[in-house]
Amino acid sequence: MFQKILIANRGEIALRIIRACRELGIRTVAIYSQADAEALHAQLADEAICIGPSAAAESYLDMERILSACIAAKADAIHPGFGFLSENSKFADMCRKCGITFIGPSAEVIERMGNKSEARNTMIKAGIPVVPGTERPLTDAGKAKEAADQIGYPVMIKAALGGGGKGMRLSQTAEDFLENFKVAQLEAIRGFGDDSMYIEKYIEEPKHIEFQILADKFGNVIQLGERDCSIQRNHQKVIEESPSSVLDERLRKEMGAVAVRAAKAAAYENAGTIEFLLDKQKRYYFMEMNTRIQVEHPVTEMVSGVDLIKEQIYIAAGLPLDLTQEEITLRGHALECRINAEDPKKNFMPCPGKLGQIHLPGGFGVRVDTAIYGGCEISPYYDSMAAKVIVHDRTRQGAIQKMRSALGELVLEGITTNLDFQFQILDDEDFINGNFDTSFIEKKFQMEKE
Amino acid sequence: MFQKILIANRGEIALRIIRACRELGIRTVAIYSQADAEALHAQLADEAICIGPSAAAESYLDMERILSACIAAKADAIHPGFGFLSENSKFADMCRKCGITFIGPSAEVIERMGNKSEARNTMIKAGIPVVPGTERPLTDAGKAKEAADQIGYPVMIKAALGGGGKGMRLSQTAEDFLENFKVAQLEAIRGFGDDSMYIEKYIEEPKHIEFQILADKFGNVIQLGERDCSIQRNHQKVIEESPSSVLDERLRKEMGAVAVRAAKAAAYENAGTIEFLLDKQKRYYFMEMNTRIQVEHPVTEMVSGVDLIKEQIYIAAGLPLDLTQEEITLRGHALECRINAEDPKKNFMPCPGKLGQIHLPGGFGVRVDTAIYGGCEISPYYDSMAAKVIVHDRTRQGAIQKMRSALGELVLEGITTNLDFQFQILDDEDFINGNFDTSFIEKKFQMEKE
Repeated sequence: MFQKILIANRGEIALRIIRACRELGIRTVAIYSQADAEALHAQLADEAICIGPSAAAESYLDMERILSACIAAKADAIHPGFGFLSENSKFADMCRKCGITFIGPSAEVIERMGNKSEARNTMIKAGIPVVPGTERPLTDAGKAKEAADQIGYPVMIKAALGGGGKGMRLSQTAEDFLENFKVAQLEAIRGFGDDSMYIEKYIEEPKHIEFQILADKFGNVIQLGERDCSIQRNHQKVIEESPSSVLDERLRKEMGAVAVRAAKAAAYENAGTIEFLLDKQKRYYFMEMNTRIQVEHPVTEMVSGVDLIKEQIYIAAGLPLDLTQEEITLRGHALECRINAEDPKKNFMPCPGKLGQIHLPGGFGVRVDTAIYGGCEISPYYDSMAAKVIVHDRTRQGAIQKMRSALGELVLEGITTNLDFQFQILDDEDFINGNFDTSFIEKKFQMEKE
Repeated sequence: MFQKILIANRGEIALRIIRACRELGIRTVAIYSQADAEALHAQLADEAICIGPSAAAESYLDMERILSACIAAKADAIHPGFGFLSENSKFADMCRKCGITFIGPSAEVIERMGNKSEARNTMIKAGIPVVPGTERPLTDAGKAKEAADQIGYPVMIKAALGGGGKGMRLSQTAEDFLENFKVAQLEAIRGFGDDSMYIEKYIEEPKHIEFQILADKFGNVIQLGERDCSIQRNHQKVIEESPSSVLDERLRKEMGAVAVRAAKAAAYENAGTIEFLLDKQKRYYFMEMNTRIQVEHPVTEMVSGVDLIKEQIYIAAGLPLDLTQEEITLRGHALECRINAEDPKKNFMPCPGKLGQIHLPGGFGVRVDTAIYGGCEISPYYDSMAAKVIVHDRTRQGAIQKMRSALGELVLEGITTNLDFQFQILDDEDFINGNFDTSFIEKKFQMEKE
């Protein structure tokens, strides 16, 4: 087992990883930027190293500095969390070359699954259903248009290296295709330094259903049920839950088995997520694989009782999974609401600032993953997510009631948040009845597509 | 279902009940004493009524004032929590006469189970094993001595109306009997206004094993597994856990069935606890029944997934249990540590005071039930328990590790606590190996028997 792990991240996920390490008796090294000198993750780790200025490019994204810190601290592994370098194959490769274990899949697997066309082709070969679309990435707008015409509108335009909704545009008709393509491609260049694009059939009003996977070095792969992440704004998840209310036992089992098959086809190792779109006829299509722990992993932990971060560490340390598929039982229903420092009235503009008094909800079945504390700064340099409130109850209705109660108890003085927006969703009849798809927020709140 | 519930308690249990009510959509009325004007339970309830001065006798124990508050607020039920009036049959009876539902068993059942000899006789009639002892309460020291001589030393002297270790003394030999009897009887008069005493065989080095019971108005009774509360100091529980590491499946099932039989023999209704002593030969003896929710109820909630406070409310509202014995599955292992404002170096003297900054642990499988906040007062008027830290993990070893990590994260500036004492227990080899009984603390820490 590792003696010391460096956590190449910040905020609540850094805290989450530190706690898992503490429980395993592994020493932790936090890294922090100048803006994060007072951050809780830096305070709670056994050691903390300042690795650079506030801008992420010079700190949390600076691979050389992070590796230097790791070598200086004599840590034998790096946990990348999510975001930042977590899906950067070059970083995983550099770790390997330095003799440091990257807690995640190999550079090759990250590379293969991170490239949408490669991921797609891998799945097609394995007989996994995918959304009809181009088999290779395109850069030329004219050729892309030809492909779109052939697939049939509406189509989705996606950056081959994209993620998190960036470099992604919907084209409803042949007429608006070229403009959307141009915008998406520009975003792709800006965001990922690559202009390869990918065109696929747009599945109308789908559910976003993803399966959590654990795969060890010995070829054992299990799935821990699905998460329904259909409540999204501008391709960013807002509320996640497990299980999904639209899957019956038969479909859950079938999709779970397909997810395991997909992970095996990718020669996957560590924790990962197979994302599907589910259409109204309950046909499912592989969308992408996320090769890291996800923001919404706690809902799976709550229903399965399995600590996903610890499993990541065990797997990376070369241990075989100590759970078989048969031993996984899912209990009750879990919901997660992301509480962001942002202003829903101003198009969800981030609202960083200094927190005053805070009060976090607690009690049976209530979990708050956060790195904030009374008087701390929410930095303008990073993501605006201030806290994840997760609840677990015997039923979905019970979980919704619990979430309302928990959010009602939450006090975050000094900053503007999306708390009221979350209440509007939780109080919505269609949400309560499980009658929603990825267009829910857009339709309910008459938002413009970006 | 109730429209509004008055919570006749304070501190973390009041908060716990308020949260359950919020989740059920029931309005809450808090009562508070002058010392508790700034208390979190008074802030979080929908309404809050000051019912008197700081001394409990004039506030949280004043039945007329509480009932007046309840009538004035038009609440239709009272939840008594634990301690204070929770096992007061007169109060339950007064509630009934006022047309207010007392969330707990009837006055008659409280009376019957609260009186140790009656409880004992009820169990003997039902064929439940009890500790050998006197069948009737005694007040005369000479007659008590005769009984003790007949039972054989060591014997335990207990106040018939006692609880929480008050009015309880161990007599090792015939020589020290009379003195111990006198002291115990004095405590009984002071604590309960009654000098009836009860003598029973002292079971040496027993485990304290208790079963959680739920019983509805329709005769349905289920048990939710056991709690091991053997880690006690001066008859006060310090660490509780579920399940117990000394019970195998066969014994667990057998004792669980006996506990259900005991509750049925008592014509019990609502949540209750059947406490057993388990000797070294794994023989078990009914000790007493607690006719209320207990401090340590969260460990059962964590392993069973059942919200005991909500069940109490459902049962009191006349709903049948929506769970059968077969549906109860227990998962993983839960531990609870009571964090008290007290000084272990000064014989655990209570140390009330003003809190400075605080930091509560969190994350997967960590629950903190508390009503404290940064800057609040821990009052000298009431119990010194500041927080209950509860953890849940797949294994007992994992739970112990998680508790260490969670307690290591806990910061309570400004007051003296038993935190280090908790660490000493958690780090003890015998505790870790499950090798302990109710004499653990006394022996390990060379404490004097009081």
